[in-house]
Amino acid sequence: MDNLSVIEQLIEALKCLPGVGPKTAQRMVLHLLERDRDGARHLADKLQLAMDSVSHCHHCRNFTEINVCPICESTSRDSSLLCVVENPGDVIAIEHTGHYRGKYFVLMGTLSPIDGIGPNELGIDDLIVRCADGVEEVILAISSSVEGEATSHYISEMIKLKGINVSRIAQGIPIGGDLEYVDGGTLAHALNGRKTV
Amino acid sequence: MDNLSVIEQLIEALKCLPGVGPKTAQRMVLHLLERDRDGARHLADKLQLAMDSVSHCHHCRNFTEINVCPICESTSRDSSLLCVVENPGDVIAIEHTGHYRGKYFVLMGTLSPIDGIGPNELGIDDLIVRCADGVEEVILAISSSVEGEATSHYISEMIKLKGINVSRIAQGIPIGGDLEYVDGGTLAHALNGRKTV
Repeated sequence: MDNLSVIEQLIEALKCLPGVGPKTAQRMVLHLLERDRDGARHLADKLQLAMDSVSHCHHCRNFTEINVCPICESTSRDSSLLCVVENPGDVIAIEHTGHYRGKYFVLMGTLSPIDGIGPNELGIDDLIVRCADGVEEVILAISSSVEGEATSHYISEMIKLKGINVSRIAQGIPIGGDLEYVDGGTLAHALNGRKTV
Repeated sequence: MDNLSVIEQLIEALKCLPGVGPKTAQRMVLHLLERDRDGARHLADKLQLAMDSVSHCHHCRNFTEINVCPICESTSRDSSLLCVVENPGDVIAIEHTGHYRGKYFVLMGTLSPIDGIGPNELGIDDLIVRCADGVEEVILAISSSVEGEATSHYISEMIKLKGINVSRIAQGIPIGGDLEYVDGGTLAHALNGRKTV
Protein backbone atom coordinates (compact mmCIF):
# COMPACT_ATOMS: atom_id res chain seq x y z
CA MET A 1 0.00 0.00 0.00
CA ASP A 2 2.90 2.33 0.82
CA ASN A 3 4.30 2.43 -2.69
CA LEU A 4 1.00 3.58 -4.19
CA SER A 5 0.75 7.26 -5.08
CA VAL A 6 -1.67 9.42 -3.09
CA ILE A 7 -4.05 9.36 -6.07
CA GLU A 8 -4.00 5.55 -6.23
CA GLN A 9 -4.57 5.36 -2.47
CA LEU A 10 -7.62 7.60 -2.82
CA ILE A 11 -8.95 5.46 -5.70
CA GLU A 12 -8.58 2.37 -3.45
CA ALA A 13 -10.27 4.15 -0.54
CA LEU A 14 -13.27 5.23 -2.65
CA LYS A 15 -14.03 1.59 -3.41
CA CYS A 16 -15.55 1.32 0.10
CA LEU A 17 -18.60 3.12 -1.34
CA PRO A 18 -21.32 0.75 -2.61
CA GLY A 19 -21.48 0.53 -6.40
CA VAL A 20 -18.08 2.16 -6.88
CA GLY A 21 -15.47 0.10 -8.74
CA PRO A 22 -12.01 1.08 -9.99
CA LYS A 23 -13.23 2.97 -13.09
CA THR A 24 -15.84 5.01 -11.23
CA ALA A 25 -13.40 5.69 -8.39
CA GLN A 26 -10.82 6.99 -10.88
CA ARG A 27 -13.41 9.24 -12.50
CA MET A 28 -14.41 10.57 -9.07
CA VAL A 29 -10.82 11.31 -8.06
CA LEU A 30 -10.00 13.13 -11.29
CA HIS A 31 -13.24 15.10 -11.06
CA LEU A 32 -12.55 16.15 -7.47
CA LEU A 33 -8.92 17.09 -8.17
CA GLU A 34 -9.77 19.04 -11.31
CA ARG A 35 -13.02 20.72 -10.37
CA ASP A 36 -14.09 20.40 -6.76
CA ARG A 37 -11.31 20.35 -4.19
CA ASP A 38 -13.37 22.34 -1.72
CA GLY A 39 -16.24 19.89 -2.08
CA ALA A 40 -13.85 17.01 -1.43
CA ARG A 41 -12.44 18.65 1.71
CA HIS A 42 -15.96 19.32 2.92
CA LEU A 43 -16.86 15.68 2.23
CA ALA A 44 -13.82 14.49 4.22
CA ASP A 45 -14.91 16.60 7.21
CA LYS A 46 -18.49 15.40 7.07
CA LEU A 47 -17.44 11.75 6.73
CA GLN A 48 -15.23 12.03 9.79
CA LEU A 49 -17.92 13.86 11.74
CA ALA A 50 -20.67 11.39 10.84
CA MET A 51 -18.57 8.30 11.60
CA ASP A 52 -17.55 9.73 14.96
CA SER A 53 -20.87 11.12 16.10
CA VAL A 54 -23.62 8.89 14.69
CA SER A 55 -24.73 5.98 16.87
CA HIS A 56 -28.08 4.33 17.54
CA CYS A 57 -31.12 5.91 19.20
CA HIS A 58 -31.65 4.36 22.66
CA HIS A 59 -35.35 3.92 21.97
CA CYS A 60 -35.76 2.89 18.33
CA ARG A 61 -32.21 1.84 17.34
CA ASN A 62 -32.30 4.18 14.32
CA PHE A 63 -29.15 6.16 13.44
CA THR A 64 -28.85 9.46 15.29
CA GLU A 65 -26.12 11.70 16.64
CA ILE A 66 -28.03 12.31 19.89
CA ASN A 67 -29.12 9.77 22.52
CA VAL A 68 -32.78 9.74 21.53
CA CYS A 69 -33.71 10.53 17.93
CA PRO A 70 -36.09 13.40 17.03
CA ILE A 71 -38.90 10.98 16.07
CA CYS A 72 -38.77 9.20 19.45
CA GLU A 73 -38.53 12.55 21.27
CA SER A 74 -41.45 14.09 19.41
CA THR A 75 -44.55 14.62 21.53
CA SER A 76 -46.75 15.31 18.51
CA ARG A 77 -46.44 11.74 17.20
CA ASP A 78 -48.77 8.93 18.17
CA SER A 79 -46.98 6.71 20.73
CA SER A 80 -49.66 4.03 20.52
CA LEU A 81 -48.55 3.08 16.99
CA LEU A 82 -45.18 1.38 16.50
CA CYS A 83 -43.88 0.53 13.04
CA VAL A 84 -41.18 -2.16 12.92
CA VAL A 85 -38.78 -1.85 9.96
CA GLU A 86 -35.59 -3.58 8.87
CA ASN A 87 -33.26 -0.64 8.45
CA PRO A 88 -32.91 3.15 8.65
CA GLY A 89 -33.56 3.54 4.91
CA ASP A 90 -37.07 2.16 5.46
CA VAL A 91 -37.78 4.86 8.06
CA ILE A 92 -36.73 7.53 5.54
CA ALA A 93 -38.95 5.95 2.85
CA ILE A 94 -41.99 5.83 5.16
CA GLU A 95 -41.37 9.37 6.44
CA HIS A 96 -41.28 10.60 2.83
CA THR A 97 -44.82 9.36 2.25
CA GLY A 98 -46.04 11.74 5.01
CA HIS A 99 -48.80 9.22 5.87
CA TYR A 100 -47.47 7.81 9.13
CA ARG A 101 -47.55 9.70 12.40
CA GLY A 102 -46.59 6.93 14.83
CA LYS A 103 -43.17 5.87 16.07
CA TYR A 104 -40.63 3.35 14.80
CA PHE A 105 -38.48 0.46 15.86
CA VAL A 106 -35.52 -0.38 13.60
CA LEU A 107 -34.32 -3.99 13.68
CA MET A 108 -31.08 -3.25 11.73
CA GLY A 109 -31.44 -6.56 9.87
CA THR A 110 -33.58 -9.68 9.71
CA LEU A 111 -33.29 -13.02 11.50
CA SER A 112 -30.60 -15.02 9.75
CA PRO A 113 -29.25 -17.84 11.93
CA ILE A 114 -26.71 -18.82 9.26
CA ASP A 115 -25.06 -15.36 9.63
CA GLY A 116 -25.37 -15.48 13.43
CA ILE A 117 -28.20 -12.93 13.52
CA GLY A 118 -30.72 -14.03 16.12
CA PRO A 119 -33.38 -12.21 18.20
CA ASN A 120 -30.67 -10.68 20.44
CA GLU A 121 -28.88 -9.01 17.51
CA LEU A 122 -32.18 -7.50 16.33
CA GLY A 123 -32.98 -6.19 19.82
CA ILE A 124 -36.32 -8.00 19.94
CA ASP A 125 -36.22 -7.92 23.77
CA ASP A 126 -35.99 -4.11 23.55
CA LEU A 127 -38.93 -4.15 21.17
CA ILE A 128 -41.05 -6.17 23.66
CA VAL A 129 -40.08 -3.76 26.46
CA ARG A 130 -40.95 -0.83 24.21
CA CYS A 131 -44.37 -2.39 23.44
CA ALA A 132 -45.24 -2.47 27.16
CA ASP A 133 -45.00 1.32 27.09
CA GLY A 134 -48.50 2.19 25.87
CA VAL A 135 -48.27 0.72 22.36
CA GLU A 136 -51.66 -0.42 21.03
CA GLU A 137 -50.73 -1.57 17.54
CA VAL A 138 -47.49 -2.87 16.07
CA ILE A 139 -47.25 -2.47 12.29
CA LEU A 140 -44.77 -4.82 10.63
CA ALA A 141 -43.19 -3.17 7.57
CA ILE A 142 -40.62 -5.88 6.85
CA SER A 143 -39.72 -7.07 3.34
CA SER A 144 -41.19 -10.37 2.20
CA SER A 145 -37.93 -12.20 1.59
CA VAL A 146 -37.54 -15.61 3.29
CA GLU A 147 -35.66 -14.00 6.21
CA GLY A 148 -38.15 -11.13 6.33
CA GLU A 149 -41.11 -13.52 6.52
CA ALA A 150 -39.45 -15.49 9.33
CA THR A 151 -38.70 -12.27 11.21
CA SER A 152 -42.28 -11.00 10.79
CA HIS A 153 -43.65 -14.32 12.00
CA TYR A 154 -41.35 -14.45 15.03
CA ILE A 155 -42.09 -10.87 16.08
CA SER A 156 -45.86 -11.21 15.60
CA GLU A 157 -45.94 -14.36 17.78
CA MET A 158 -43.96 -12.63 20.54
CA ILE A 159 -46.16 -9.53 20.48
CA LYS A 160 -49.48 -11.36 20.31
CA LEU A 161 -48.47 -13.07 23.58
CA LYS A 162 -48.50 -9.60 25.17
CA GLY A 163 -52.06 -9.02 23.92
CA ILE A 164 -51.07 -6.20 21.54
CA ASN A 165 -52.55 -5.95 18.03
CA VAL A 166 -50.15 -6.76 15.21
CA SER A 167 -50.73 -5.75 11.59
CA ARG A 168 -48.66 -5.96 8.46
CA ILE A 169 -48.44 -3.48 5.58
CA ALA A 170 -50.45 -4.59 2.53
CA GLN A 171 -48.87 -6.68 -0.17
CA GLY A 172 -50.19 -6.39 -3.72
CA ILE A 173 -49.56 -4.75 -7.04
CA PRO A 174 -47.80 -1.37 -6.94
CA ILE A 175 -49.83 1.77 -7.78
CA GLY A 176 -49.42 2.43 -11.50
CA GLY A 177 -47.91 -1.03 -11.93
CA ASP A 178 -48.80 -2.87 -15.12
CA LEU A 179 -50.32 -6.31 -14.33
CA GLU A 180 -48.38 -7.78 -17.22
CA TYR A 181 -45.05 -6.98 -15.59
CA VAL A 182 -45.89 -7.90 -12.00
CA ASP A 183 -44.26 -11.16 -10.86
CA GLY A 184 -46.40 -14.23 -10.18
CA GLY A 185 -45.85 -14.28 -6.40
CA THR A 186 -47.02 -10.69 -6.01
CA LEU A 187 -50.02 -11.28 -8.26
CA ALA A 188 -51.03 -14.40 -6.28
CA HIS A 189 -50.77 -12.37 -3.04
CA ALA A 190 -52.83 -9.58 -4.59
CA LEU A 191 -55.56 -12.01 -5.66
CA ASN A 192 -55.69 -13.69 -2.25
CA GLY A 193 -55.76 -10.31 -0.50
CA ARG A 194 -58.58 -8.90 -2.68
CA LYS A 195 -61.02 -6.47 -1.03
CA THR A 196 -64.74 -5.99 -1.64
CA VAL A 197 -65.42 -2.62 -3.26
CA MET B 1 -27.43 24.04 6.53
CA ASP B 2 -27.02 24.18 10.31
CA ASN B 3 -30.33 22.59 11.15
CA LEU B 4 -29.63 19.49 9.06
CA SER B 5 -28.63 16.38 10.97
CA VAL B 6 -25.09 15.05 10.57
CA ILE B 7 -26.44 12.29 8.33
CA GLU B 8 -28.23 14.78 6.07
CA GLN B 9 -25.10 16.93 5.91
CA LEU B 10 -23.08 13.89 4.79
CA ILE B 11 -25.70 13.04 2.15
CA GLU B 12 -25.41 16.62 0.84
CA ALA B 13 -21.61 16.46 0.88
CA LEU B 14 -21.52 13.17 -1.08
CA LYS B 15 -23.35 14.84 -3.96
CA CYS B 16 -20.04 16.49 -4.95
CA LEU B 17 -19.07 13.10 -6.44
CA PRO B 18 -19.91 12.76 -10.15
CA GLY B 19 -22.94 10.57 -10.83
CA VAL B 20 -24.10 10.64 -7.20
CA GLY B 21 -27.59 12.04 -6.57
CA PRO B 22 -29.67 12.11 -3.37
CA LYS B 23 -30.78 8.44 -3.53
CA THR B 24 -27.29 7.07 -4.18
CA ALA B 25 -25.82 9.37 -1.53
CA GLN B 26 -28.35 8.11 1.04
CA ARG B 27 -27.55 4.50 0.16
CA MET B 28 -23.82 5.24 0.53
CA VAL B 29 -24.26 6.89 3.93
CA LEU B 30 -26.40 4.06 5.33
CA HIS B 31 -23.96 1.47 3.96
CA LEU B 32 -20.96 3.21 5.53
CA LEU B 33 -22.68 3.71 8.90
CA GLU B 34 -23.95 0.13 9.05
CA ARG B 35 -21.08 -1.81 7.59
CA ASP B 36 -17.90 0.12 6.94
CA ARG B 37 -17.10 2.89 9.40
CA ASP B 38 -13.38 2.15 9.23
CA GLY B 39 -13.48 2.36 5.44
CA ALA B 40 -15.24 5.72 5.67
CA ARG B 41 -12.66 7.11 8.12
CA HIS B 42 -9.88 5.86 5.86
CA LEU B 43 -11.60 7.53 2.89
CA ALA B 44 -11.86 10.82 4.82
CA ASP B 45 -8.10 10.72 5.55
CA LYS B 46 -7.18 9.90 1.97
CA LEU B 47 -9.47 12.61 0.58
CA GLN B 48 -7.89 15.23 2.83
CA LEU B 49 -4.38 14.00 2.00
CA ALA B 50 -4.96 13.95 -1.76
CA MET B 51 -6.60 17.40 -1.86
CA ASP B 52 -3.76 18.88 0.19
CA SER B 53 -0.82 17.20 -1.49
CA VAL B 54 -1.70 16.68 -5.16
CA SER B 55 -0.73 19.44 -7.55
CA HIS B 56 0.55 19.54 -11.12
CA CYS B 57 3.85 18.15 -12.42
CA HIS B 58 6.16 21.04 -13.37
CA HIS B 59 7.02 19.34 -16.65
CA CYS B 60 3.87 17.68 -17.98
CA ARG B 61 1.09 19.32 -15.90
CA ASN B 62 -0.26 15.88 -14.91
CA PHE B 63 -1.45 15.38 -11.31
CA THR B 64 1.30 14.38 -8.91
CA GLU B 65 2.14 14.87 -5.25
CA ILE B 66 5.82 15.58 -6.05
CA ASN B 67 7.28 18.39 -8.15
CA VAL B 68 8.05 16.25 -11.17
CA CYS B 69 5.95 13.15 -11.84
CA PRO B 70 7.50 9.66 -12.12
CA ILE B 71 6.92 9.53 -15.90
CA CYS B 72 8.78 12.81 -16.50
CA GLU B 73 11.56 11.75 -14.10
CA SER B 74 12.02 8.35 -15.72
CA THR B 75 15.28 7.94 -17.63
CA SER B 76 14.12 4.71 -19.29
CA ARG B 77 11.42 6.46 -21.30
CA ASP B 78 11.96 7.97 -24.74
CA SER B 79 12.26 11.75 -24.34
CA SER B 80 12.10 12.32 -28.09
CA LEU B 81 8.42 11.32 -28.16
CA LEU B 82 5.83 13.61 -26.57
CA CYS B 83 2.17 12.65 -26.41
CA VAL B 84 -0.26 15.55 -25.90
CA VAL B 85 -3.51 14.58 -24.13
CA GLU B 86 -6.49 16.47 -22.74
CA ASN B 87 -6.57 15.22 -19.17
CA PRO B 88 -4.91 12.91 -16.61
CA GLY B 89 -7.42 10.14 -17.31
CA ASP B 90 -6.07 9.89 -20.86
CA VAL B 91 -2.54 9.33 -19.53
CA ILE B 92 -3.84 6.46 -17.38
CA ALA B 93 -5.68 4.96 -20.38
CA ILE B 94 -2.59 5.13 -22.62
CA GLU B 95 -0.31 3.77 -19.87
CA HIS B 96 -2.68 0.79 -19.47
CA THR B 97 -2.13 -0.21 -23.09
CA GLY B 98 1.58 -0.68 -22.33
CA HIS B 99 2.37 0.38 -25.93
CA TYR B 100 3.78 3.84 -25.35
CA ARG B 101 7.22 4.50 -23.93
CA GLY B 102 7.53 8.24 -24.55
CA LYS B 103 6.56 11.17 -22.35
CA TYR B 104 3.38 13.20 -21.97
CA PHE B 105 2.03 16.70 -21.87
CA VAL B 106 -1.39 17.16 -20.27
CA LEU B 107 -3.42 20.16 -21.44
CA MET B 108 -6.04 19.87 -18.64
CA GLY B 109 -8.79 20.82 -21.11
CA THR B 110 -9.38 21.94 -24.68
CA LEU B 111 -9.54 25.39 -26.26
CA SER B 112 -12.95 26.82 -25.49
CA PRO B 113 -13.03 30.61 -25.85
CA ILE B 114 -16.67 30.73 -24.69
CA ASP B 115 -15.58 29.32 -21.28
CA GLY B 116 -12.51 31.56 -21.19
CA ILE B 117 -10.11 28.71 -21.93
CA GLY B 118 -7.43 29.94 -24.31
CA PRO B 119 -3.84 28.84 -25.11
CA ASN B 120 -2.58 30.30 -21.81
CA GLU B 121 -4.94 28.19 -19.70
CA LEU B 122 -3.79 25.05 -21.54
CA GLY B 123 -0.12 25.90 -21.02
CA ILE B 124 0.65 25.80 -24.74
CA ASP B 125 3.66 28.08 -24.20
CA ASP B 126 5.05 25.49 -21.76
CA LEU B 127 4.42 22.82 -24.40
CA ILE B 128 6.43 24.78 -26.99
CA VAL B 129 9.29 25.25 -24.48
CA ARG B 130 9.13 21.53 -23.67
CA CYS B 131 9.35 20.68 -27.40
CA ALA B 132 12.61 22.60 -27.74
CA ASP B 133 14.10 20.08 -25.28
CA GLY B 134 15.03 17.28 -27.70
CA VAL B 135 11.52 16.28 -28.75
CA GLU B 136 11.45 14.81 -32.29
CA GLU B 137 7.79 13.89 -32.61
CA VAL B 138 4.67 15.24 -30.98
CA ILE B 139 1.73 12.80 -30.97
CA LEU B 140 -1.67 14.46 -30.57
CA ALA B 141 -4.07 12.18 -28.68
CA ILE B 142 -6.92 14.65 -28.33
CA SER B 143 -10.58 13.75 -28.71
CA SER B 144 -12.30 14.64 -31.98
CA SER B 145 -14.99 16.91 -30.53
CA VAL B 146 -15.27 20.39 -32.07
CA GLU B 147 -13.10 21.86 -29.28
CA GLY B 148 -10.67 18.93 -29.53
CA GLU B 149 -10.27 19.41 -33.29
CA ALA B 150 -9.63 23.14 -32.84
CA THR B 151 -7.07 22.41 -30.11
CA SER B 152 -5.29 19.79 -32.26
CA HIS B 153 -5.18 22.18 -35.21
CA TYR B 154 -3.83 25.08 -33.12
CA ILE B 155 -1.12 22.97 -31.47
CA SER B 156 -0.04 21.29 -34.69
CA GLU B 157 0.37 24.70 -36.40
CA MET B 158 2.44 26.02 -33.48
CA ILE B 159 4.68 22.97 -33.40
CA LYS B 160 5.20 22.68 -37.15
CA LEU B 161 6.60 26.25 -37.01
CA LYS B 162 9.39 24.83 -34.79
CA GLY B 163 10.19 22.19 -37.42
CA ILE B 164 9.10 19.27 -35.21
CA ASN B 165 7.07 16.35 -36.60
CA VAL B 166 3.45 16.24 -35.49
CA SER B 167 1.27 13.13 -35.75
CA ARG B 168 -2.19 12.28 -34.59
CA ILE B 169 -3.48 8.96 -33.26
CA ALA B 170 -5.48 7.02 -35.87
CA GLN B 171 -9.21 7.49 -36.19
CA GLY B 172 -11.31 4.62 -37.49
CA ILE B 173 -13.47 1.74 -36.41
CA PRO B 174 -12.70 0.25 -32.96
CA ILE B 175 -11.11 -3.23 -32.80
CA GLY B 176 -13.94 -5.78 -32.54
CA GLY B 177 -16.42 -3.04 -33.49
CA ASP B 178 -19.35 -4.10 -35.63
CA LEU B 179 -19.55 -1.94 -38.79
CA GLU B 180 -23.31 -1.87 -38.45
CA TYR B 181 -23.15 -0.03 -35.13
CA VAL B 182 -20.34 2.42 -35.95
CA ASP B 183 -21.56 6.00 -36.45
CA GLY B 184 -21.42 7.60 -39.90
CA GLY B 185 -18.71 10.13 -39.05
CA THR B 186 -16.34 7.44 -37.79
CA LEU B 187 -17.04 5.23 -40.79
CA ALA B 188 -16.39 8.11 -43.21
CA HIS B 189 -13.07 8.82 -41.42
CA ALA B 190 -12.18 5.12 -41.57
CA LEU B 191 -12.87 4.99 -45.33
CA ASN B 192 -10.84 8.14 -46.04
CA GLY B 193 -7.99 6.87 -43.90
CA ARG B 194 -7.84 3.42 -45.54
CA LYS B 195 -4.43 1.75 -45.88
CA THR B 196 -3.06 -0.50 -48.62
CA VAL B 197 -2.60 -4.06 -47.36
